[in-house]
Amino acid sequence: MDFENRIYSGTLKNRITSARDAAGLIRDGMTVACSGFTACGYPKAVPLVLADRVRRGETIRINLITGASVGEELDETLASLDIIARRYPYQTGPIIKRSINDGRIMYQDIHLSKLADQIRCGFLGRIDVAVIEATAILEDGSVVPTTSVGNSPVFIEQADRVIIEINTTQPAELTGMHDIFVPGRYPHRQPIPITDPAQRVGTTAVPCDPRKIAAICPCDIPDNPRPLAVVDEEARAIGHYLVEFINGAVRGRVCDDLPIFQSGVGTFANVVLEEILHSDWTDILLWAEVIQDGIFDLIDSGQLAFASGTSLTPSPEGLKRFYEHISRYRERIILRPQEVSNSSEVVGRLGLVTMNTAVEVDIYGNVNSSHLSGNMVINGIGGSGDFSRNALISIFMTPSTGREGAFSRIVPHVTHVDHTEHEVHVIITEQGVADLRGLDPRERAVRIIENCAHPRYREALMDYYSRALRRGGHTPMLLDEAFRWHLNYAEKGDMLPE
Amino acid sequence: MDFENRIYSGTLKNRITSARDAAGLIRDGMTVACSGFTACGYPKAVPLVLADRVRRGETIRINLITGASVGEELDETLASLDIIARRYPYQTGPIIKRSINDGRIMYQDIHLSKLADQIRCGFLGRIDVAVIEATAILEDGSVVPTTSVGNSPVFIEQADRVIIEINTTQPAELTGMHDIFVPGRYPHRQPIPITDPAQRVGTTAVPCDPRKIAAICPCDIPDNPRPLAVVDEEARAIGHYLVEFINGAVRGRVCDDLPIFQSGVGTFANVVLEEILHSDWTDILLWAEVIQDGIFDLIDSGQLAFASGTSLTPSPEGLKRFYEHISRYRERIILRPQEVSNSSEVVGRLGLVTMNTAVEVDIYGNVNSSHLSGNMVINGIGGSGDFSRNALISIFMTPSTGREGAFSRIVPHVTHVDHTEHEVHVIITEQGVADLRGLDPRERAVRIIENCAHPRYREALMDYYSRALRRGGHTPMLLDEAFRWHLNYAEKGDMLPE
Repeated sequence: MDFENRIYSGTLKNRITSARDAAGLIRDGMTVACSGFTACGYPKAVPLVLADRVRRGETIRINLITGASVGEELDETLASLDIIARRYPYQTGPIIKRSINDGRIMYQDIHLSKLADQIRCGFLGRIDVAVIEATAILEDGSVVPTTSVGNSPVFIEQADRVIIEINTTQPAELTGMHDIFVPGRYPHRQPIPITDPAQRVGTTAVPCDPRKIAAICPCDIPDNPRPLAVVDEEARAIGHYLVEFINGAVRGRVCDDLPIFQSGVGTFANVVLEEILHSDWTDILLWAEVIQDGIFDLIDSGQLAFASGTSLTPSPEGLKRFYEHISRYRERIILRPQEVSNSSEVVGRLGLVTMNTAVEVDIYGNVNSSHLSGNMVINGIGGSGDFSRNALISIFMTPSTGREGAFSRIVPHVTHVDHTEHEVHVIITEQGVADLRGLDPRERAVRIIENCAHPRYREALMDYYSRALRRGGHTPMLLDEAFRWHLNYAEKGDMLPE
Repeated sequence: MDFENRIYSGTLKNRITSARDAAGLIRDGMTVACSGFTACGYPKAVPLVLADRVRRGETIRINLITGASVGEELDETLASLDIIARRYPYQTGPIIKRSINDGRIMYQDIHLSKLADQIRCGFLGRIDVAVIEATAILEDGSVVPTTSVGNSPVFIEQADRVIIEINTTQPAELTGMHDIFVPGRYPHRQPIPITDPAQRVGTTAVPCDPRKIAAICPCDIPDNPRPLAVVDEEARAIGHYLVEFINGAVRGRVCDDLPIFQSGVGTFANVVLEEILHSDWTDILLWAEVIQDGIFDLIDSGQLAFASGTSLTPSPEGLKRFYEHISRYRERIILRPQEVSNSSEVVGRLGLVTMNTAVEVDIYGNVNSSHLSGNMVINGIGGSGDFSRNALISIFMTPSTGREGAFSRIVPHVTHVDHTEHEVHVIITEQGVADLRGLDPRERAVRIIENCAHPRYREALMDYYSRALRRGGHTPMLLDEAFRWHLNYAEKGDMLPE
């Protein structure tokens, strides 16, 4: 279906222009909000024009706001040309990450559920231009998203002007997969009436005042999703322990049969979904932010009843598979605004069992999911806090070591806390499961060390803990040794040098 | 109104017994759940009998679960006799605190909103006996709470047997002040339909299967609330800055006029309420867990439209005042179960501006609200996480120093994190306000040091930060110096010894 046929409003056809002219609306110093959540559904043509203008000598520095991370054309290309002055709420990519850690980009890492209200309530200033990738524009000006919804509704609502990139590589059959519910103004907001992941409560397109649409341009660049990493045995072991834990401690115990699950982003989370494929679970419900390859497998196997997210996040092969069988998959998937998919309200109500990945965990169960060595941000907290904080059971998974065993991911004290002991109920590594529910910190320490730490580090962890215990207190710690292991790694390349 | 007249069910009158006989249902090794949230509405007669039995040589060790902290008759008396083996979800008092820090009591500090579901879903084992203070028992067996609701609904629902202490010092006019809404079973729970603090959505008494009521005994011991501490100039200054901040940056900006507020527990929070009394604010709405003296002032001044909580938490004088004018105050106050007052769902929906107290804050805005020196628990996280994590604007307040200036409450790195940088939007000390919304961690550091740190520590904080900045990263830190100040204080009694 070609470009012009995707614009159902006759009057809006006079806003058709080239990506170059559309990008002309963006000037130095502006705040630009773009669709996209992971490398799906983000604008591509307009950002590449911006990059081109800078390469030709123009100075452009913008504040860039998105749903979460986006594709390379946007974050990596613009960061490599120093176009991004300020960035919210999340990012991924080696170039932008370096710019942030070097201080060339100011970045605030914000709970993904919270950004929409922070924009609506003016915390981040005005949005000059929203650039939204769309499948189509309907007669009343409303915009059909593509492979993600993210923050597009609030961006369109709040921006002074809107640029629509109609991406003709995105199948027209995406129409109808979205459910756009936009909460009202504080303080007398109504409930989000969702009680089931399959429930529809909104419209299939994002409402948009047609007078705001300043430009509509075509784009024929496909989504550029990230490949899945090679799956190792550790990830499989963790997936195996997860299924075992749910079967033994959750299924039929905390609710009638299976709880509703949330599953995080990335290779690791995907492997866990693959392990679920080998379980006897059926009628699985997922309430999450991303829909990954593993979900397509669970649809094909007949085990998944329904998955709700704000974005697809397949591998390149997964995206191809999704496009080929879209009529089958769309029956079991809804994409929602991230202020709904990640909302505290719905997460709390559904009683989720959440499964997220940790960078490191300490012996009391505090989780670092964003920083290396305390100072270097990797990506950010993303949606992990939205889900874990309001979950019924919050599970964090990580291999017990990294860098061929040179560092332990179970440490005496995490260098950065993203999830506190209060919202971490279960830790799983390839060594085993630490179910921390109901335990005192001193009991947690012993259980985490015994069940989750790698044998190479177990004795040293217990030695630290025992000496801390002699100092006393509810949460024993040694102020002068808390980060000794991290210092060892920084200085000698090993947390426990010989 | 005397004891027997408060039992409206004729058949239940045959369960009347003495506190001593009622306490006989509690045996060594049991899990006992008691009403109470702060030193209001907790059982007194039965715990004192338990203490007496132990003083006479009986061995009793129980797991004790409550709403939050409770009065001295319960926590302090039982802890002093080593009767408490395990404690959830919060506590206050020098004796119980010492027992916890010494390892004689296993204590898990749990987000107060979450305990009810953790019990319902079996995380903490079965409840053998619930001991509930009541104003009255209705004809169908349902129980009218007293000065707090806390977790009484779930305790009554889940316990094998229920003991009711009818406290005749509690005025019968408390009947009608409560609104009991109990969420359904996961995973298909319905919305909590609250959109306004004044809204009623439940019953005025706690449903109770009368067959569960094993004993009904009288109690004539009044609530024993804690006095307010002496108010100092620092607290007044913080209250003043708070009002100024709301007027300048919030009122009419993030919502139509004033947002709905949450205010934490204690003297400090109360002083802030007193400062609000001097503002021109009207139609104030409060959605919180506790109703303190300052709320009565705001009702008397005509500024408060409505306050919703789970407990009264007045000073001894405040309680007297409440009892004397109960007909006036009850028109503007509702007490709810803490799984409703602190629920992520309602907190998120109402768009709260939350005001809680910090023990220490680091230069990036991470907040410690529970531990001294990293290891010694004070009370716990309480409800602060329930409110701040899901707030629209989360404010933390603290004096900039403690112990006559010998330690700074603004530190390079907090020793324990209860609230991460992601959910801390504003810091207020007597020095000023740091509005952190939209800022990169490096910007946050400078703003917190300049606006909130005490002049004695400002230069040293900036020196730490500058050197950390040279090491680089998004969140600059020095692994080997992060806790140097805390070590100084522990070793030399001053964070910055001469």
